[in-house]
Amino acid sequence: MTRLRIVLAPDSFKESMSAPEAVAAMERGVRRVLPDAECVPVPMADGGEGTTDALVAALGGELVEVPTTDPLGRPVTARYGWVADDRLAVVEVAAAVGLHLLAPQERDPMVASSAGVGAVLRDALDRGAHRLLVGLGGSATNDGGAGMLQALGADLRGTDGGALPGGGGALARLATLDLAGLDPRLADVEIEVASDVTNPLLGPEGASAVFGPQKGATPQMVADLDAALARWADALGRATGRDVAEVPGAGAAGGLGAAFLALGGTLSSGIDVVVRAARLEEHLAGADLVLTGEGSLDGQTLRGKTPYGVARAAARHGVPVIAFAGRVGAGAEALYDHGFAALVPIVRGVTDLPTALTDGSENLERAVETVVRVLNLSTPGHGVRAPSRDS
Amino acid sequence: MTRLRIVLAPDSFKESMSAPEAVAAMERGVRRVLPDAECVPVPMADGGEGTTDALVAALGGELVEVPTTDPLGRPVTARYGWVADDRLAVVEVAAAVGLHLLAPQERDPMVASSAGVGAVLRDALDRGAHRLLVGLGGSATNDGGAGMLQALGADLRGTDGGALPGGGGALARLATLDLAGLDPRLADVEIEVASDVTNPLLGPEGASAVFGPQKGATPQMVADLDAALARWADALGRATGRDVAEVPGAGAAGGLGAAFLALGGTLSSGIDVVVRAARLEEHLAGADLVLTGEGSLDGQTLRGKTPYGVARAAARHGVPVIAFAGRVGAGAEALYDHGFAALVPIVRGVTDLPTALTDGSENLERAVETVVRVLNLSTPGHGVRAPSRDS
Repeated sequence: MTRLRIVLAPDSFKESMSAPEAVAAMERGVRRVLPDAECVPVPMADGGEGTTDALVAALGGELVEVPTTDPLGRPVTARYGWVADDRLAVVEVAAAVGLHLLAPQERDPMVASSAGVGAVLRDALDRGAHRLLVGLGGSATNDGGAGMLQALGADLRGTDGGALPGGGGALARLATLDLAGLDPRLADVEIEVASDVTNPLLGPEGASAVFGPQKGATPQMVADLDAALARWADALGRATGRDVAEVPGAGAAGGLGAAFLALGGTLSSGIDVVVRAARLEEHLAGADLVLTGEGSLDGQTLRGKTPYGVARAAARHGVPVIAFAGRVGAGAEALYDHGFAALVPIVRGVTDLPTALTDGSENLERAVETVVRVLNLSTPGHGVRAPSRDS
Repeated sequence: MTRLRIVLAPDSFKESMSAPEAVAAMERGVRRVLPDAECVPVPMADGGEGTTDALVAALGGELVEVPTTDPLGRPVTARYGWVADDRLAVVEVAAAVGLHLLAPQERDPMVASSAGVGAVLRDALDRGAHRLLVGLGGSATNDGGAGMLQALGADLRGTDGGALPGGGGALARLATLDLAGLDPRLADVEIEVASDVTNPLLGPEGASAVFGPQKGATPQMVADLDAALARWADALGRATGRDVAEVPGAGAAGGLGAAFLALGGTLSSGIDVVVRAARLEEHLAGADLVLTGEGSLDGQTLRGKTPYGVARAAARHGVPVIAFAGRVGAGAEALYDHGFAALVPIVRGVTDLPTALTDGSENLERAVETVVRVLNLSTPGHGVRAPSRDS
């Protein structure tokens, strides 16, 4: 008898389960019905929050804590993922410079600096990283990654000749950028940047105009920051020979996208980066089924969410996909046209949100059990004929 | 290619869908995936509320309205089911003498009479009924069915020689019962009574003690009614030669159970009566799958609820059962040991009860679609191997 090979590739169920916890719940559900099935755990993420945890679990890495500085220069401990076998570091910039590290009244994109990211990358280089997987998003900064490059050895001088202080505002006074002192190990590192944002660095669709306000920028600050980033882009272009301001995604994370591009990094959608890093396709080859899911499945899922990325990868290998969610919402039916075999809500009755979140793991386990029981029905001799395909 | 034959045998989803509506939603769900599947509609019930609607739909009958009297003798229109092909009448006693017909302050088991049921049965006999399927439960009466028998021609005299008025209290003055005038057509009618209550007519587990209080009986009334019913049971035994007071179920519906037993009727659990009447087993023969369900699946389901009855019938034919519910609650896992292949909650996310009830039909349709999609996955060549049975 053949053993069913099932790839378990959910994202986190926000506020309820991390992706590794969702994988564990799915595996319990499968084993309730098929104790001997081969379960292949591939916890997933979309490049946003949870990407580090998912990839560390998927690749058998470890979580590393490194002392660094927050957007306002205060000490903070940032966590990143280290996968020794792959010499891969998984870094979410928000771990060091996230908006969540600041109280609302502390938000100030004029002075917030991305320097803390630089210290994290240095730590990864010290461990021997050959690949950096960087998740953008959630940053409190609007400095075009200037602070990060400074922390990695770049020399930024102001019009007064002194070293430029941190923050996007200061870039208005940028006179020279010298990359001679940049950590030389960066040249040998492959940098993959996950970003679902395709904004350019400058202008009305740029970092300052679109993301500045949520970081505390007034209309005047937006104008000032945009002008400052233009000055920074000029300097960066001259210093690296790469004109990155117009590249889609350069404006992500307050322009950190531009800095990573200038370092030779490549930007891709978050889910694509994670699918590659987690080697999902290797796991899908020869699999019978893949289970995915996240907190919600709806019309938005097709806009680069994890289940959609998993479904696209699975389609390349002819593996059917069943997706689970705390909520199957409006527009979810469209997923049936995009490779999803079935969409399964996991709640078990009328319930409030806190209860649903608390029960998420148990509910997911039960929902997977139900689906595997239904699959199991089609076994020859069990009663249900394999149905005819008439649709 | 073989067409899948799917029996659709849900109960109503209380306050959300009638059983026929649930069948329709299930059929829509199946057809979303398998437009050519053979769907066999068998709306079900458990002998309680909704039994008439379900059986009329299952058997292609009609609903008949008949003028009769409510428990207090006021005019009321009662509905019952008539299946001409089977010469079968489906009567829920509550349609004429239900507690729901009285305002709370009108409840009075001393005077409430079951006479209204007699008029309904007469109407059925006039149509040529050869079978009566009677659902007990929900009555406002505690008269041992005396009123019903009076309405069907029995002569009840009081100690003063006059015709006895209606109501359980009057039976304390019963002197003679003469059944010579009873409608003679009753002798040729098969009476199947659905009752999930196994209480005897008299004593601490009897109709008056157990069900009297919810019909408005004070402790004194309970004692008086119990004594009156004892007198009635004696008279009934002498007149029919049947001693029915101790028979399980005699105490159902204020003792209407005893009256039907005295008429030669048989009492069975509601679901068994409905399974037989709906000819569920004929439909199950050769079916690939049966879908059932009701508002809630939980530990109580094994106590004679419709899905359990459907599962037992299906087991006799080796047909797998998938059950759907608005809520899959505590203890539902026990159903997996009793022939259920899968339990499927239909809600699609966090929701409140009014919304869940309103969306019930759509949710059921979607849940059935999901299950059929999963079943459909196991088709040879579609990717999923039929899984090994290792549990």
